[in-house]
Amino acid sequence: MTEPLRIALAGLGTVGAGVIRLLDTNGELIARRAGRPIVVTAVSARDRTKDRGVDIARFDWVDDPAELARHPKADVVVELVGGSDGPALALARATLAAGKSLVTANKAMIAHHGLELARAAESANLALKFEAAVAGGVPVIKGLREGAAANVIARVYGILNGTCNFILSKMEAEGRDFSEILGEAQALGYAEADPSFDIDGVDAAHKLSILASVAFGTQPAFGDVAITGVRHLLAADIAEAAALGYRIRLLGVADSGPHGLFQRVHPHLVPLSHPLAHVIGSTNAVVAEGNFVGRLLFQGAGAGDGPTASAVVADLIDIARGEFGPPYAMPADALAAQHAADSGERRARAYVRLTVADKVGVLAEIAAAMRDAGVSIESLIQRGANPDGSVLVAIVTHEGPERSVAQALEKLRGSQSLVGESMWMHILGE
Amino acid sequence: MTEPLRIALAGLGTVGAGVIRLLDTNGELIARRAGRPIVVTAVSARDRTKDRGVDIARFDWVDDPAELARHPKADVVVELVGGSDGPALALARATLAAGKSLVTANKAMIAHHGLELARAAESANLALKFEAAVAGGVPVIKGLREGAAANVIARVYGILNGTCNFILSKMEAEGRDFSEILGEAQALGYAEADPSFDIDGVDAAHKLSILASVAFGTQPAFGDVAITGVRHLLAADIAEAAALGYRIRLLGVADSGPHGLFQRVHPHLVPLSHPLAHVIGSTNAVVAEGNFVGRLLFQGAGAGDGPTASAVVADLIDIARGEFGPPYAMPADALAAQHAADSGERRARAYVRLTVADKVGVLAEIAAAMRDAGVSIESLIQRGANPDGSVLVAIVTHEGPERSVAQALEKLRGSQSLVGESMWMHILGE
Repeated sequence: MTEPLRIALAGLGTVGAGVIRLLDTNGELIARRAGRPIVVTAVSARDRTKDRGVDIARFDWVDDPAELARHPKADVVVELVGGSDGPALALARATLAAGKSLVTANKAMIAHHGLELARAAESANLALKFEAAVAGGVPVIKGLREGAAANVIARVYGILNGTCNFILSKMEAEGRDFSEILGEAQALGYAEADPSFDIDGVDAAHKLSILASVAFGTQPAFGDVAITGVRHLLAADIAEAAALGYRIRLLGVADSGPHGLFQRVHPHLVPLSHPLAHVIGSTNAVVAEGNFVGRLLFQGAGAGDGPTASAVVADLIDIARGEFGPPYAMPADALAAQHAADSGERRARAYVRLTVADKVGVLAEIAAAMRDAGVSIESLIQRGANPDGSVLVAIVTHEGPERSVAQALEKLRGSQSLVGESMWMHILGE
Repeated sequence: MTEPLRIALAGLGTVGAGVIRLLDTNGELIARRAGRPIVVTAVSARDRTKDRGVDIARFDWVDDPAELARHPKADVVVELVGGSDGPALALARATLAAGKSLVTANKAMIAHHGLELARAAESANLALKFEAAVAGGVPVIKGLREGAAANVIARVYGILNGTCNFILSKMEAEGRDFSEILGEAQALGYAEADPSFDIDGVDAAHKLSILASVAFGTQPAFGDVAITGVRHLLAADIAEAAALGYRIRLLGVADSGPHGLFQRVHPHLVPLSHPLAHVIGSTNAVVAEGNFVGRLLFQGAGAGDGPTASAVVADLIDIARGEFGPPYAMPADALAAQHAADSGERRARAYVRLTVADKVGVLAEIAAAMRDAGVSIESLIQRGANPDGSVLVAIVTHEGPERSVAQALEKLRGSQSLVGESMWMHILGE
């Protein structure tokens, strides 16, 4: 096992360059740990001449990434092109068809096409590995697939998008509104120019659906993830949550049981006694609850060239060691097809925020709508009028079915008393 | 690969019974994940008739655990006997000599004899796995050995003893002294009747030395761990720390570099901004700092039958899958022999607590001793007299060499002004 493992690398953005830099910097140590050297032999990217801070002249260059699948000097293809379909998917399919193993950081592709690719890899005894696709450098796929493999996992949830957590932490620290902070995050490079995938929760949903399959042994079902992002959050929501002993975090939450497969990305109120309340900045964190191990937490950098490269190369080390099996911990054909759970019956406490006109009878109207829908109010805070004369009403409900909260808000829709969007959030248990 | 993996289990205490219960409860799922069933075939314990809540009549019984090594119906021996030497070590050696793989939860044995056992396992192409020996159910050995394998790890540290953390959390929550809480913890089963291994830091030191070897690729050096426990902590220390924005945690800390291998178990002041400050109760948590991945955190239940059984069976699943390599991530013969670092040159901020007589000139004497040793004082709090007339002085130093703090305390030793033990703690950086 002293033959090097030869890598063809598609995509030389920050992560691709990071992988090359990592192998250059830690190569000797990695060879000792992997039992053999891991060497890049061929690369492909859009622009051959761009300065990436690493020397790529020593590698074979190919213009068309799809050619890497059949490159004679490569055992494994690392796909860092991105995008759920298109050239990334074409390369992934061609790689496995050509008898090479595949490592990818592409959460969108795995969320949409992971099952197909896993079947192809398994039938050819090849590796398909995607640690870098979820939570950046945090080895959470490995933690679920192997570390917690002895457990029935009932629930997996966490902070899966660093951009959102960075913005929420900053809103919290500075008492400012979402849109202001977003602009700063974009300027600093913590948010994309088109931030919609991040802040509307799609990126977190990709990751959640991957985690759910590995954790529960269920078929990937990205289409069933209910998604709400963080655009609509106000500084006032964060302040009210803080007054109640909570922080707001965008969580991906999945559970599985006789009720079906439940998958949701939604802002939550997280109690300060919960470790996720203390995850600050662009950090990611995933909690898994197993029937023997209890609650496990994995936390670390969710993005960035160094952490993502670390996860990509960890996958390569597994392949170099010959230590890989079915991508989803069990054969793809053994994954259960589970129907999507109905969220309406779920019981939880909820936070409801209404912006209302400052006039007589408004509170009575709200209280009546809640009562008629069967929502029991635990606490209600009405703050003095905003500069525009509107008033913020923040309500925490007792535990009850989610459907009731939605019904109460539905009843209030169109009311003359409401002057802004109402919204509600889940409250995470201890 | 549908032949079952056959297990001989030595030791049927709570963890041993937990392993049987786990395999009974989750067996079908485990078989799907492992690619084949994992079945216990033979057991050994002190008392055959004791009620353990699991049926052991279906397994072969042997009186002498050493016989399991040569049991014809076992592929792997799980050693849960405990103790660094004696029957556990004899069984471990015999198991590997007989060509069977070994899984153990025995931190003391691995801390003292891990290198010898790893050599024996490697030369016979067998597995030696000990995930359950460190941090109970938390897959941190796997996280370092595989998940972070692409990184040079500069430092690994964490909360490695659940009993101490349970006691510290309770002291903190209730403002009570160590000895009182210890008695309660013992009554609740959170502390042993002889708690010394836990509260004097030996158990944490065993785990730290194992983590250090896996993280740094250095030979195990348990004898070089500097150990201080938590017996001497006062409720007042916790209150002073809280007033300064810290919580007190017993940390195992190891780092490696040109200065040598540094390993220490010691109570630390942990800033509230650090995730370890929010680890409450008997939970364990380990932080590893890699040169590409940054800071990773692994957290979960550090003890208990369910979590420990989860880690034992995770190791068995790896073996069933054929996914195991050298126990310390690289061959035992490639582990570097590193000299023990001199802690005196380390620079950090420190907390110093003195109990002094309430009389003129005491503060001047303390301040002079600090000055003479070159210790720069950042803050000093003197609280009103205790019921016995003594006064507590809590000092936080500016960053400086540890040697100076020790020298200052040495100067004060024997002074008529001191009426109780003085002590100092490290302050963990952000």
